[in-house]
Amino acid sequence: MKLPEADAKRSIPADGFFRSRWVEAPAGIEELDPAVLAPGFRAGGAHCGLKGGGKTDVGLLVCDVCRERIERGGIRAAVVNSGNANAETGEQGIADAWAMCETAAAELELRPEQVAVAETGVIGVPMPIGDVLPAIGTAAGSLSGDGGGAFSQAIVTTDRWPKRCTLRAGGVTVSAQAKGAGMIEPNMATMLCFVQTDAVLADPAGELAAAVDASFHRITVDGQMSTNDTVLLQGTGAAGAPLPEGLLEAVLKQMAIEIVADGEGAARVGRIEVTGAASAAEAERVARAIANSPLVKTALYGRDPNWGRIAQAAGAALVGEDLEEIGAESIDATDLASEGKEAEIGLRLDRGEHRAHVWFSDLGYEYVRINAEYTT
Amino acid sequence: MKLPEADAKRSIPADGFFRSRWVEAPAGIEELDPAVLAPGFRAGGAHCGLKGGGKTDVGLLVCDVCRERIERGGIRAAVVNSGNANAETGEQGIADAWAMCETAAAELELRPEQVAVAETGVIGVPMPIGDVLPAIGTAAGSLSGDGGGAFSQAIVTTDRWPKRCTLRAGGVTVSAQAKGAGMIEPNMATMLCFVQTDAVLADPAGELAAAVDASFHRITVDGQMSTNDTVLLQGTGAAGAPLPEGLLEAVLKQMAIEIVADGEGAARVGRIEVTGAASAAEAERVARAIANSPLVKTALYGRDPNWGRIAQAAGAALVGEDLEEIGAESIDATDLASEGKEAEIGLRLDRGEHRAHVWFSDLGYEYVRINAEYTT
Repeated sequence: MKLPEADAKRSIPADGFFRSRWVEAPAGIEELDPAVLAPGFRAGGAHCGLKGGGKTDVGLLVCDVCRERIERGGIRAAVVNSGNANAETGEQGIADAWAMCETAAAELELRPEQVAVAETGVIGVPMPIGDVLPAIGTAAGSLSGDGGGAFSQAIVTTDRWPKRCTLRAGGVTVSAQAKGAGMIEPNMATMLCFVQTDAVLADPAGELAAAVDASFHRITVDGQMSTNDTVLLQGTGAAGAPLPEGLLEAVLKQMAIEIVADGEGAARVGRIEVTGAASAAEAERVARAIANSPLVKTALYGRDPNWGRIAQAAGAALVGEDLEEIGAESIDATDLASEGKEAEIGLRLDRGEHRAHVWFSDLGYEYVRINAEYTT
Repeated sequence: MKLPEADAKRSIPADGFFRSRWVEAPAGIEELDPAVLAPGFRAGGAHCGLKGGGKTDVGLLVCDVCRERIERGGIRAAVVNSGNANAETGEQGIADAWAMCETAAAELELRPEQVAVAETGVIGVPMPIGDVLPAIGTAAGSLSGDGGGAFSQAIVTTDRWPKRCTLRAGGVTVSAQAKGAGMIEPNMATMLCFVQTDAVLADPAGELAAAVDASFHRITVDGQMSTNDTVLLQGTGAAGAPLPEGLLEAVLKQMAIEIVADGEGAARVGRIEVTGAASAAEAERVARAIANSPLVKTALYGRDPNWGRIAQAAGAALVGEDLEEIGAESIDATDLASEGKEAEIGLRLDRGEHRAHVWFSDLGYEYVRINAEYTT
């Protein structure tokens, strides 16, 4: 059930969804209650003990609009859980994931191959599938158009806050839910993001790939890879209008920066931009070396404009290259000392025309607390 | 002046120099007061304000035995300072380093090219050379055979304890002083190590290279490279006997492990051994990926036998390879949970016959405190 407009707006945070200075959202966006999904979608959640404390840990998301092209084999629904990644669980793990799809499909009157499954949590622990399958039934019974909150709860693990939004612009609605806080590099992991819209998507795979390249592929928390990641974009086309130019990218960028800002124990987000590199790969390598340097990350945490640490990380990434000296004049690190939660760092090489940027979290006491006390 | 034997032994720590379970020292080693250098060497120190608080920050080390081969161009002395790395200081920095060599040479009646210079500390700050040069004169005035303590103090920066020893075995004496606690990878940096002996060194460069390969090249604290590192081995040959087999390697290994144990804020040392890799380079890459993973390092700190984190670090280092599953049975992580300060981890791949090991520090609250509060 969609909330009346007035009620819907009440639960929007005062600072709005597009909080980051690095995200330029298209003009004329209206923010709605993020619990309310784009028209044509329903979601719900339940708990089965994977996370303990009665927390929602199983979720369902379904698209009720049956466009012909979706019927021809696309994903119609997603079944998710948090608290157990169902990774490194062998043949039984594959059977368990398939059982989740089959159960969800039966509840939703779909075929199992129309249901995506996405799971994050501890690795190497068998799924308590006997508890999970009944919870999928419970989640199915709770499906509603304003179930975005329950679905969002069902995907979070160590997240300190939910990442979600519902936006209206240009006659279409977009809703999105993401999770992620650790093991965030390279190439998305560990994170999940679900996007629903009633817009017409002319080239959904291409639009999504471009938006992911500009967002989830440009972040790091601790340089650690994951076994589990998914971004799912579903469009009904019912609104008869396309997504406003740049909206999908803006939503995913804000989500990506939220994930970094929530990076396990993070207090600040940095953005390093490397310019003047000899190749795109070199720009990327140098930017990631800086973004993943524990010395740079502690300087971001400690508000220390320590350009020497940036120089050493860059120099280490360029070992063997014929390199001009990287000195204070090549580096703009002053923003590290700023009061703000977002700090912009620039490194100018003199080797070519290529550039790359990466968003990264700081390294503070909370990172240690979370990761030293989290036990298998 | 050399202390009488009885006095000399009094200041040796109860647990002895060879404290690590990973170091096998040759039999029959006698430990002497580490302030007393090998015969034929003198050292001294002074302070000039680089480190503040009147701490010794300038040191001199000189070999008084003038063997013909040393006279033909070898290094006779070392002038060192701590508190300023004299790095990224441009032409003036080179001139300042040369001025230090010239001043030391004049004090010691040597040629400047017979004097090595070694410096660590902050990067990018010009040397207060007007204060440093007079302190070299003061250090020269303090030179003595038991000046190893002052010299050791002159090289330390964030070290929590000095790393030094004087050992006698097989009719020869070896003394050594090292410093290092952060930016420890790859290939030595940031560390200094000075070794003096009266043994005959048949192939000093070869012996030193082999010992460094087995020690300082096999450690990491935070995966960060440095601008400054030096290992200097000086032998007079006056004892007329060679170094006992394995002694140099044992000394450097213990020094290397001390540096890791003192890794900025470290509480524990881990050793990861990767076996069954397809190539030596692959074994090395996987071992270093595990050793530098912040998730593995926090698990070492938190005594969490979390094999999933080792699997993910190894998997990330092997992306693109045709890989058998890395499961619990491939990994021995139980020692992570032990009470001891040293933890041994094993990862067995099934891809070939190559192996590699790396010593690494944990990541705890102290790493954050030291690096977030240390300011340029």
